[in-house]
Amino acid sequence: MRGEILCIGDELISGRISDRNARYAAGRLWPLGLGLAGFSYLGDDLDEIVRVLRQALARCDWLVISGGLGTTEDDLTAAAAARALGLPLIEHPQKLAELEALLASLGRPLTPEIRRMALMPEGAEPLDPRSAGFAITVAGGKPLYFLPGVPPEFQRIIERRVAPELGARFGSGHLASATIRLFGLGESEVGRRLAGLVNGVPGASLGYYPVFPEVILALSARAETPELAQERVAELEAQCLERLADWVVVRGSQPLEARVGELLKAAGLTLALAESCTGGLIGHRITEVAGSSAYFLRGYVVYSNPAKQELLGVAAATLASHGAVSSQCAAEMAAGARERAGADLALAVTGIAGPEGGSPEKPVGTVWFGLAYPGGVLTEHKRFAGDRQMVKLQAAENALDLLRRHLEGH
Amino acid sequence: MRGEILCIGDELISGRISDRNARYAAGRLWPLGLGLAGFSYLGDDLDEIVRVLRQALARCDWLVISGGLGTTEDDLTAAAAARALGLPLIEHPQKLAELEALLASLGRPLTPEIRRMALMPEGAEPLDPRSAGFAITVAGGKPLYFLPGVPPEFQRIIERRVAPELGARFGSGHLASATIRLFGLGESEVGRRLAGLVNGVPGASLGYYPVFPEVILALSARAETPELAQERVAELEAQCLERLADWVVVRGSQPLEARVGELLKAAGLTLALAESCTGGLIGHRITEVAGSSAYFLRGYVVYSNPAKQELLGVAAATLASHGAVSSQCAAEMAAGARERAGADLALAVTGIAGPEGGSPEKPVGTVWFGLAYPGGVLTEHKRFAGDRQMVKLQAAENALDLLRRHLEGH
Repeated sequence: MRGEILCIGDELISGRISDRNARYAAGRLWPLGLGLAGFSYLGDDLDEIVRVLRQALARCDWLVISGGLGTTEDDLTAAAAARALGLPLIEHPQKLAELEALLASLGRPLTPEIRRMALMPEGAEPLDPRSAGFAITVAGGKPLYFLPGVPPEFQRIIERRVAPELGARFGSGHLASATIRLFGLGESEVGRRLAGLVNGVPGASLGYYPVFPEVILALSARAETPELAQERVAELEAQCLERLADWVVVRGSQPLEARVGELLKAAGLTLALAESCTGGLIGHRITEVAGSSAYFLRGYVVYSNPAKQELLGVAAATLASHGAVSSQCAAEMAAGARERAGADLALAVTGIAGPEGGSPEKPVGTVWFGLAYPGGVLTEHKRFAGDRQMVKLQAAENALDLLRRHLEGH
Repeated sequence: MRGEILCIGDELISGRISDRNARYAAGRLWPLGLGLAGFSYLGDDLDEIVRVLRQALARCDWLVISGGLGTTEDDLTAAAAARALGLPLIEHPQKLAELEALLASLGRPLTPEIRRMALMPEGAEPLDPRSAGFAITVAGGKPLYFLPGVPPEFQRIIERRVAPELGARFGSGHLASATIRLFGLGESEVGRRLAGLVNGVPGASLGYYPVFPEVILALSARAETPELAQERVAELEAQCLERLADWVVVRGSQPLEARVGELLKAAGLTLALAESCTGGLIGHRITEVAGSSAYFLRGYVVYSNPAKQELLGVAAATLASHGAVSSQCAAEMAAGARERAGADLALAVTGIAGPEGGSPEKPVGTVWFGLAYPGGVLTEHKRFAGDRQMVKLQAAENALDLLRRHLEGH
């Protein structure tokens, strides 16, 4: 079973536009087990479109084609489809009637340009009365869907026609999926630890990919019934959690800051932040979550040492003896933020993001974390690799994870 | 002249990830007149990669391939390249030496997985000491570039190797380029205002693409001599600046926060921040710039109204009469931050990011900005469209731009 997605338009291959359609279709069609093998982008060139269509048709069982169905001279998809399929290009009577009725209701004339939207290969059927697009089944019963490039229209037709029809036609059984987010382990190590796992669960598949600073595990399992598929993916998930327990930050697909927000809300706790090297990144992430004002009170971005002293009460002696990047400073920052904000919890981060500022004792990437809670303060030390941006990203992630671990009772 | 871009990775065709690489490469290579005909995405399947490579090589003069160069079992590109080209797969001695040296400096062992990064077809050369990737010229002198899929590494190699080399190899004459960053105008409006501009300058090409919340203009011009090419691109740039003056935030490719840092350093001025709805995003951006500790003193993330009052001295009466999202509140936040931080300048942002919190008088997307400077405070109002994340991104961008305009004397 094999299918592909083709997206047509000069604006897509010149880099000017970021295409959303292929990714949307892939997200909907990939899990259906239809054998989605890839997608291609090509420009508004009739011969190129014909060539690509013919070759794709030869190796595929189904195709989804997007774009080039508008009313301008550059819209060549219908003509290219007719040529590639060796069929006449005709005006579809029903589509023409729909266009006439639509324009009449808007008090507008049916121009020659708009009339082009009724053009399609003989034997094709319009997909949707409200937009361009047609479907045709060709030699060997292969369904081809030609969709408009406008994202909302494309998505609607994927939902209403393409996904259900291809799923019913080619999909096997039922699919269940799960996601796990990992932090602190490189991609190759993740792969090493998961080796052979998929073999133990029937119908299971597992993919992992980095979205720095995390590695995302995408699990799925297929079976004849939804219940059995769900059981299988739960088994797969359990095995992944066992092998990677120390690096799991979220069981599920929500961002870590959303998980933290959930935990704070459930416990009725408030939070303050004290950031140095992260500059405000942790506050930014916390406030990405709608409703975070229910638990997030304030953040202190104490980028300079005077700010640490004035805003949080970090002692001059601490800075003189231990420096800003130390367990003592992190503890005082957290305790100071907690007290002055009147928050239940406070998180602090102080480190060396680089490229400047490192030393043999405290190289670039050295970060101290503090967490103040009712009854105490704990600190944690990490050494991160990478450039300035990477150190900041990892520091923010670890801070949120430290808070998560505390709230989950680890 | 014909070339294509191939992107490899299951995560790309399952719809989970939005690829940035092909679009970035297209944006850089399309204007060079290299005959970029399209790009394709395919999964981690060895036979598929070999097939696609062979077919692309047969019809193309150059190729850029991204992805599949990591250390896991799914990373098949080097092996597929060797097979498609009919060459042995070898460990490149220089790359192996570089990997050993890099890991030794981090105090880590050279594992068999990481060692895989030295694998490439015989005759290929590593592209960059800091990442995976190799280049090889094959029958007929066709250059093939195999790049890592990690976006910053991919972009760096495109900038340093691929664009200059392909431009010099296949582009005609000398090329000069320029970049302009825009904010506050949608892509289609940018296109409308630039219509016809390229026709007025010989050898010129212009691409534009959104990197939210900005639109980037990539200008280039070709000529027989470097001086003439430079003249032409300067003419093109001048015309773009004239048509789009109101929306230009950076003349050049550096991020806006880097431009702001440059201006602050040159003027010897210090900065404090007062953020509400942006949550710390502006501080995060400011501190992305190495050396920002020279001008950035501190940030107040005053997410709650009590925090605005306690940390910045915003009057209870102001909050009661005008609300937190108002010109008065923004002005008091900025003035309070400036005074308490002892900074020369202070920026404040207060707004409604959504989805909750809007009203008929102050709908979601309403944001007030304050800038306190020696001698006064000014405020600015914007209404942004989009969801929570989009409102925050636009608010942070406008805050930095407000500061830039002030420092540039507008």
